[in-house]
Amino acid sequence: MARGKKIYEGKAKTLYEGPEPGTLIQYFKDDATAFNAEKKAIVDGKGVLNNRLSEFFMEGLNSIGVPNHFIKRLNMREQLIRQCEIVPLEVIVRNYAAGSMSKRLGIEEGTQLPRPIIEFSYKDDDLGDPLVPEEYIIAFGWASQQEMDDIVALALRVNDYLSGVMYGVGIKLIDFKIEIGRVFEGDFMRLIVADEISPDSCRLWDIESGQKLDKDVFRRDLGNLTDAYTEVARRLGVLPTNGPAAANSVIN
Amino acid sequence: MARGKKIYEGKAKTLYEGPEPGTLIQYFKDDATAFNAEKKAIVDGKGVLNNRLSEFFMEGLNSIGVPNHFIKRLNMREQLIRQCEIVPLEVIVRNYAAGSMSKRLGIEEGTQLPRPIIEFSYKDDDLGDPLVPEEYIIAFGWASQQEMDDIVALALRVNDYLSGVMYGVGIKLIDFKIEIGRVFEGDFMRLIVADEISPDSCRLWDIESGQKLDKDVFRRDLGNLTDAYTEVARRLGVLPTNGPAAANSVIN
Ligand SMILES: Nc1ncnc2c1ncn2[C@@H]1O[C@H](COP(=O)(O)OP(=O)(O)O)[C@@H](O)[C@H]1O
Ligand SMILES: Nc1ncnc2c1ncn2[C@@H]1O[C@H](COP(=O)(O)OP(=O)(O)O)[C@@H](O)[C@H]1O
Ligand SMILES: [Mg+2]
Ligand SMILES: [Mg+2]
Repeated sequence: MARGKKIYEGKAKTLYEGPEPGTLIQYFKDDATAFNAEKKAIVDGKGVLNNRLSEFFMEGLNSIGVPNHFIKRLNMREQLIRQCEIVPLEVIVRNYAAGSMSKRLGIEEGTQLPRPIIEFSYKDDDLGDPLVPEEYIIAFGWASQQEMDDIVALALRVNDYLSGVMYGVGIKLIDFKIEIGRVFEGDFMRLIVADEISPDSCRLWDIESGQKLDKDVFRRDLGNLTDAYTEVARRLGVLPTNGPAAANSVIN
Repeated sequence: MARGKKIYEGKAKTLYEGPEPGTLIQYFKDDATAFNAEKKAIVDGKGVLNNRLSEFFMEGLNSIGVPNHFIKRLNMREQLIRQCEIVPLEVIVRNYAAGSMSKRLGIEEGTQLPRPIIEFSYKDDDLGDPLVPEEYIIAFGWASQQEMDDIVALALRVNDYLSGVMYGVGIKLIDFKIEIGRVFEGDFMRLIVADEISPDSCRLWDIESGQKLDKDVFRRDLGNLTDAYTEVARRLGVLPTNGPAAANSVIN
């Protein structure tokens, strides 16, 4: 499929115009960044794995009726998605304390939370994606109250489902981040899950050993990131024909 | 743990008094029945597998905050559960048409439904567990409107989660049945998921081949039921130490 012109180059993905109006091509790069891009590296095969895993999760969500941007995978690194107007928030769902929550509140990583906790960061790299109260979001018009209610409901469904997917293969879903976008059909607007769902955007711990299988491997120099993501993909049966080697051997 | 006196012997399980007030011991038999017990057989190892699988699903639900009766597994065939007042309904959630829905509405089995559909049967063996409109349930006082709203919310969460668990191991959750019970704490009442979650109470199809991995194997004479349930348990990593052989070799 012919790529249209480049629309946006982000830290982990590049967006191109899609073949039809209202579509985009999402290209998954091998770039890994952390701490708002202060730490950077190229991780061979990461883009291939995330493209495949995001497809897998989005298709699964679609099968239970959670609307999302995924249309189809085009090749090892690209997928066709529905273009949407991104709500400028990182929607974070936490089941266990970790990362910034542990640091800010002094709660040990891995502590189970009394219930899933949803929080929002304002998506702005220059500001370092600051945590914001819902009140700010409404007041500054980033999303309406009705949208926020819908976003919470969507995020909780994604959490129940993804927790199940991971539990089935011996992985604990500690937390994850999604982005939500608006799509318009005539006078109607709907919210859909956008961006990506992958080990870049989730914290995933092996249930037995506690081993980290997510981007913290990169953030904290815990080993080979591709190996960790490959393990997730392998457990989910997502590299059925090629096996892990394929991810590493891909060039483009 | 010493079993108390027998309280109820059902088609697939026997309930005994538990060690503490408010607890029961649920013993999983090898008896398989279908069509309201018109078809019967002993299926070696089924009870062991269902005891283990129900533990696995109930623990998973517990981890995401869906309250249920499971306390702990005692041995190969018994688990300690919280006693509750069972709402006399089979709560059925369908994602794809199958079984009685396909028959009654002439919809081909496996057809995806426009959205998950919840239906209720009045739990009464003599009447053959007849399908009932929600209106009957309220009017006859089997459950209140508030309870029905809570039951629907619980059932949908179980559906999202279990759909995910199955998707992670290449299985499609066609439909399932749960029972709901009331527990009382002082003046308060709460609804919890009770009975069992197992291939006896779900329809499970392999995503690739469409192969049935549930009680339909018995209902429709499609092969060895223990093999089908063992396959589900194997994929979920639920027979880690013993392997499938253990289920067959258990006597009690
Ligand atoms: N369906 C979509 N429509 C429009 N924009 C999207 C869609 N899905 C994701 N995006 C945006 O594409 C960009 C993805 O690239 P990424 O490398 O993650 O960027 P960033 O560095 O901004 O996080 C993000 O800005 C994200 O908000
Ligand atoms: N936590 C519980 N407390 C009390 N009764 C329960 C609980 N869980 C399940 N039951 C009941 O125990 C019985 C389970 O045995 P089963 O063999 O399935 O019976 P049946 O033939 O009536 O379906 C069912 O009647 C079910 O409603
Ligand atoms: Mg991003
Ligand atoms: Mg029963």
